[in-house]
Amino acid sequence: MPVERLSAAQIEQGLEELPEWGLDQRKLYRHFVFPTFIEAWGFMSEVALLAETQNHHPEWTNVYGRVEIYLTTHDAGGISERDFRLARAIDLL
Amino acid sequence: MPVERLSAAQIEQGLEELPEWGLDQRKLYRHFVFPTFIEAWGFMSEVALLAETQNHHPEWTNVYGRVEIYLTTHDAGGISERDFRLARAIDLL
Repeated sequence: MPVERLSAAQIEQGLEELPEWGLDQRKLYRHFVFPTFIEAWGFMSEVALLAETQNHHPEWTNVYGRVEIYLTTHDAGGISERDFRLARAIDLL
Repeated sequence: MPVERLSAAQIEQGLEELPEWGLDQRKLYRHFVFPTFIEAWGFMSEVALLAETQNHHPEWTNVYGRVEIYLTTHDAGGISERDFRLARAIDLL
């Protein structure tokens, strides 16, 4: 079953429940800053397992303690419910 | 002891021994493509341990099976021997 791209209104509504997330390059975006690489990597390891469990993977960049996460759904050509599901799970870490 | 930035000639010479690496944004650059996220993540975990051991960390991006690695030395304001050391270690994985 193909996943559907959300409308701008749906995205706006979804973001209201995720105040730490925004839009960047038409993707859900949040960044995290940790004091050390070890802490950043520990966090990324948790996100990696979430992503694999959800079979939905982030686009992400790491520089030392900084982690930037972009979520989009290529199959849908935009942001889908899968992105919000992963964002919510990340926020619960 | 501060680490020294390498000259353009030294960087060129160093790259001759690392044919898979190039320059991008004035950083050492190489990308890797794996069939799955699990394999990409396994590779990244190895690099993370190398980086922490060497106390020198990459700037890197991952999207599913793709991993892009940029190496530079902020303290030196450019590419240093530390970047080549990490690049060589990554190539040995």
